[in-house]
Amino acid sequence: MQTPWEYRYAHRMQKMGSSVIRELLKFTEQPDIISFAGGLPAPEVFPVKEFQEACNQVLTNQGPQALQYGTTEGYLPLREMIARHTGRYSVKITIDNIMITSGSQQALDFLGRLFINRGDYIVVESPTYLGALQAWNAYGAQYISVPSDEDGMIMDKLEEALRIGPKFIYVLPNFQNPSGATMSLERRKRLILLADQYGVPIVEDDPYGQLRYDGEHIPSVVYLDSRYRNDGEENGGYTGNVIYLSTFSKLLAPGLRLAWVVAPPQVIRRLVMTKQAADLHTSSFNQCVAHEVAKGGFLDEHVKVIRATYKERRDVMLEMMDEMFPPEMRWTKPLGGMFLWGIMPEGVDAAEVLKEALVRKVAFVPGAAFHPNGGGANTMRLNFSFSSPDVIREGITRLGTTLKEILHKNGHK
Amino acid sequence: MQTPWEYRYAHRMQKMGSSVIRELLKFTEQPDIISFAGGLPAPEVFPVKEFQEACNQVLTNQGPQALQYGTTEGYLPLREMIARHTGRYSVKITIDNIMITSGSQQALDFLGRLFINRGDYIVVESPTYLGALQAWNAYGAQYISVPSDEDGMIMDKLEEALRIGPKFIYVLPNFQNPSGATMSLERRKRLILLADQYGVPIVEDDPYGQLRYDGEHIPSVVYLDSRYRNDGEENGGYTGNVIYLSTFSKLLAPGLRLAWVVAPPQVIRRLVMTKQAADLHTSSFNQCVAHEVAKGGFLDEHVKVIRATYKERRDVMLEMMDEMFPPEMRWTKPLGGMFLWGIMPEGVDAAEVLKEALVRKVAFVPGAAFHPNGGGANTMRLNFSFSSPDVIREGITRLGTTLKEILHKNGHK
Repeated sequence: MQTPWEYRYAHRMQKMGSSVIRELLKFTEQPDIISFAGGLPAPEVFPVKEFQEACNQVLTNQGPQALQYGTTEGYLPLREMIARHTGRYSVKITIDNIMITSGSQQALDFLGRLFINRGDYIVVESPTYLGALQAWNAYGAQYISVPSDEDGMIMDKLEEALRIGPKFIYVLPNFQNPSGATMSLERRKRLILLADQYGVPIVEDDPYGQLRYDGEHIPSVVYLDSRYRNDGEENGGYTGNVIYLSTFSKLLAPGLRLAWVVAPPQVIRRLVMTKQAADLHTSSFNQCVAHEVAKGGFLDEHVKVIRATYKERRDVMLEMMDEMFPPEMRWTKPLGGMFLWGIMPEGVDAAEVLKEALVRKVAFVPGAAFHPNGGGANTMRLNFSFSSPDVIREGITRLGTTLKEILHKNGHK
Repeated sequence: MQTPWEYRYAHRMQKMGSSVIRELLKFTEQPDIISFAGGLPAPEVFPVKEFQEACNQVLTNQGPQALQYGTTEGYLPLREMIARHTGRYSVKITIDNIMITSGSQQALDFLGRLFINRGDYIVVESPTYLGALQAWNAYGAQYISVPSDEDGMIMDKLEEALRIGPKFIYVLPNFQNPSGATMSLERRKRLILLADQYGVPIVEDDPYGQLRYDGEHIPSVVYLDSRYRNDGEENGGYTGNVIYLSTFSKLLAPGLRLAWVVAPPQVIRRLVMTKQAADLHTSSFNQCVAHEVAKGGFLDEHVKVIRATYKERRDVMLEMMDEMFPPEMRWTKPLGGMFLWGIMPEGVDAAEVLKEALVRKVAFVPGAAFHPNGGGANTMRLNFSFSSPDVIREGITRLGTTLKEILHKNGHK
């Protein structure tokens, strides 16, 4: 017998559907599969001992406070720490510019709730972060995909996109998920000029900014915007055109679900009201623990460990790809982050390749999902942060064999 | 200079407004104010030591797993524990009926997202839980308020409401927030019959079910529904007409932001997709820690401590009200939970009383906010769980003085 929750809402239930890719990716959870499909940090680098000490400290010194309801904005000392930290990169902000969220995904969701009306256009890089698309699809967003290369969004194409009248521009300038691309300084500056010219605000999503393995740090878009609007002044205050997102997921641990938004105070106030209705506040305990772990400057040391670990894994993956992948394959050489991007010859379908790869017990994410307006069927995202170097070697060997076989079958050899 | 985030969305920013009550309630955070306005558990009963042990255990034995990304449905052992626990109360469910949420507020938000279209009617008790209204207002819900007394919703009025064609019925049968009322067994049975007759599903919100201080446990609506639909069979399986919400916030600690939904599997699948776009998943670490604290049967012992503590506080508050409140005042005598409900004579405005009360350094929440369709201006919610007995004595003395003064001034004396 169907119950009212079922028959009343059958049409909504059907909308769910079930994607072929999602079904395929379920196989990646099997223990004998080497998966480059996920986006997981390496568990080996989680600072377990420091967490243990921090939990003990927090519960000993402020247990009742840490376990009680907290404010929707977030734990004050943590917001103060983030404000100071952001100030280090020369954007002066105060706690009134910061709200703590339950992961960056929540910030993306709230921005959708606040700013997207059904049918609104959002400018995104192509490819772009799948989580943002999932969040904003729920609000009926449409996307203008701006072609991107290894230096990020192509700015002449951005200008065309801005003429369509988008609500905002969404960029991941550093070691982008999924492509691994980093937007060049020149393009970041141009991005700010164009955004200003067309009066369109920017969302800068920066989960991996500190995970750079080669080359020099490029100033964030939010910082460049503050310099631009403060007439080039080095230590300009936050000017409010760029909403900036970052997270503790990649620096500390994703299991805490701790991230933050930097925005103009009146946007923060609105976000706070949204959060109050959505989940009241982010776990007080986790905020206290993260603050305790991070407060003595630990993160600056810890990020070096993460960088060394991921750099090695990236290098191993790139070396193995050079050795094992067929010559028709191209791929990005990311300067940081957790992902690289493989491009097969036109006409090869990555979903088909995934099926074959699963037979050989190796997995990746086909790239089409990262293209909201179609395309990218011949691309794939590979994660290099999670697997150990030995596992990467074996996995890329398996994937290389799969690719050679398929490209050969397709007559590409 | 206004930035694009400001001038583009100025109309949305304005919608925020600022409520008088919210402004008044900010004063309650001042340290010299005795506040019965909040809805906080007593921090004295948080099991800090047990948390400390659990954190150490979890980080020692499963640190990397607890700090890693987790599944959107929730930590499997925790869902299994909840399924077993729910089974104890004779509703057989499986893990496929359970999703972990970041507090019950998130479950309310998601139900709104999934089921409420702008203009839809939801049947609520009058008064009802403010958090549900905040969550569902965001989706354009309208409410049919069914008058309630100390035995909960008045069922003849519910039948009238059902003829309007609501999407679902929302009830808090145990020690309701804000009124403290408990729905009688007879009315629960009638609720199920009426819901079945009109084909309208039910959301049962049960944060306080285990916090009973007097009398016998009354079976939950979800349980009664399963007996009704399984032809009276004692151990019937979950029948899916009632979505049931509960939480660890009152049993363990609200700072963890851990709650759960019981729903038909296909509703759970849809909730999981919603959660994936909203915040990926609830903190793995907190789920592991809560499971570790609770797994050996600790909650059954711990709830006795909470009950003893809150019963004393409720009794002190009721005694003091008997002694200090003017004779025109009426109030509920809740059998459990954290709140009681004061009713002043018609024509007295609780918001005005709050202003005077703040002068005397005592606070409560005026009741109007809990009435989505108006009314209740002469009512107030008082929390008795947070303040110690001595503070309750002093606070009720202050409030009694305020009330006597105002009622006298208004000529009620």
